[in-house]
Amino acid sequence: MNNQDISPNSESAIGVFDSGIGGLTVVKALMERLPHENIIYFGDTARVPYGVKSKKTIQLFTQQITEFLLQKNVKALVVACNTISAVALNTVKKLAHNIPVIDVISAGASEALKVTNNNQIGVIATSTTVNSNAYARAIANYNINARVISKACSLLVPLIEEGWLNNEITRLTVREYLKPVLAENIDTLILGCTHYPLLKPMIQTEVGSDISLIDSAITVAKTIANELEQKKLLNHDDSLPDYQFYVSDIPLKFQTIGEQFLGRTLEHIERQILG
Amino acid sequence: MNNQDISPNSESAIGVFDSGIGGLTVVKALMERLPHENIIYFGDTARVPYGVKSKKTIQLFTQQITEFLLQKNVKALVVACNTISAVALNTVKKLAHNIPVIDVISAGASEALKVTNNNQIGVIATSTTVNSNAYARAIANYNINARVISKACSLLVPLIEEGWLNNEITRLTVREYLKPVLAENIDTLILGCTHYPLLKPMIQTEVGSDISLIDSAITVAKTIANELEQKKLLNHDDSLPDYQFYVSDIPLKFQTIGEQFLGRTLEHIERQILG
Repeated sequence: MNNQDISPNSESAIGVFDSGIGGLTVVKALMERLPHENIIYFGDTARVPYGVKSKKTIQLFTQQITEFLLQKNVKALVVACNTISAVALNTVKKLAHNIPVIDVISAGASEALKVTNNNQIGVIATSTTVNSNAYARAIANYNINARVISKACSLLVPLIEEGWLNNEITRLTVREYLKPVLAENIDTLILGCTHYPLLKPMIQTEVGSDISLIDSAITVAKTIANELEQKKLLNHDDSLPDYQFYVSDIPLKFQTIGEQFLGRTLEHIERQILG
Repeated sequence: MNNQDISPNSESAIGVFDSGIGGLTVVKALMERLPHENIIYFGDTARVPYGVKSKKTIQLFTQQITEFLLQKNVKALVVACNTISAVALNTVKKLAHNIPVIDVISAGASEALKVTNNNQIGVIATSTTVNSNAYARAIANYNINARVISKACSLLVPLIEEGWLNNEITRLTVREYLKPVLAENIDTLILGCTHYPLLKPMIQTEVGSDISLIDSAITVAKTIANELEQKKLLNHDDSLPDYQFYVSDIPLKFQTIGEQFLGRTLEHIERQILG
């Protein structure tokens, strides 16, 4: 019997996906916020990074991942990738029909507006996310008076994946990128990439304590908890939750880096080629 | 009529390929060394970078690219990617049959041995190239007494693609990576990634004038010139050569970055999806 023939129920898993392993910071936040939920993760590690690729290519890859997760009968889809949220969210929503879709950009934008006092919001992200202008659009949808100052920070993902988390070069790079953002009068800064929570302490030091950081992993977990509660889809089964991790490639250091993102042991990894 | 039914002749193009745009430094060197040759380039920009992917995935991608170029009836294949040369050269050679295959690693290794006086050779490259130990093997094949000191420099490609070529952060990163290599008594350093020629002046300053840099783009051009001359396959047609550039994705800034690598205007770009 095809999984697609059964409607998802409260015991169905939450499907989370990303272009790579960054989305594991969202899985971590979900595990902490919703410890009873089953989770299926897909990371497109064979084709990562999406941040430098064209819209057309990203939409094709997104379609393949969404179809894969829908076949697993997920009850909700979490787009844990800013680039996908920025340029291919409609691809996901069309395929998902009535299944809730939560994306990091909408979640981050609405949280930033709750936190800001002066409506001056900074965003740091990959260049595709920044060029898509998606945060500015999401924020304008909620509040037309808010102003968004964005900065593409292409080197932060490679620095994090190199493991240079407490490194002077990383600090100088963060400082260099933040200069034009801090020259504006922002009081809130969105970490617009799922990798960036790993640099949160360093970024907080650089921006000072007067600026609030929006960690979209935490924000997404909060949003999905509300959504599932409203739809009466929270899992109340008290047995150990099931976590499955699918990746399109298992590269060198995957386990090490993945566990840094997840903050715990990474088990049940399967290689799944798409396309 | 299928191109594969005709044997390549001297007017056939040289096929050059890379995981992305780095191989354009090899095309540049080829244009300068062999100005009469037609060139077809394939860059797998939709799936770049290969440096962090598994052997199995890289071999599959390499097979697809090789088949594409063979259908274009190329007279020689240049593997302008250290990662592919390191882990999938046999995939290319098997498919190429009697067509010459020149790869950056063999070319760089044999040039380094010609240049070194003390047989202590440094190699900087991506982590997959370093982990594959391919330079050490290629060098040992020629001279068992030579010693190879390698260092993976994962951040140099992103720094170059960010355009931070004359930047203090890049200099500090280069210095950090070179420390363990310079602690050994090397007199020759192989730039084991086709991106690195763009940092050649900075790297030369950092290592000092006593250490010779091996630029594999230049070395490959020299090797293929010899190979084609021996096989009587040099193009003597005096009309303007034909340059075709195929990429699996045309990302943001592709033109700008590509022209930096090629050192001239980048025309006749086509998007070609593989797999």
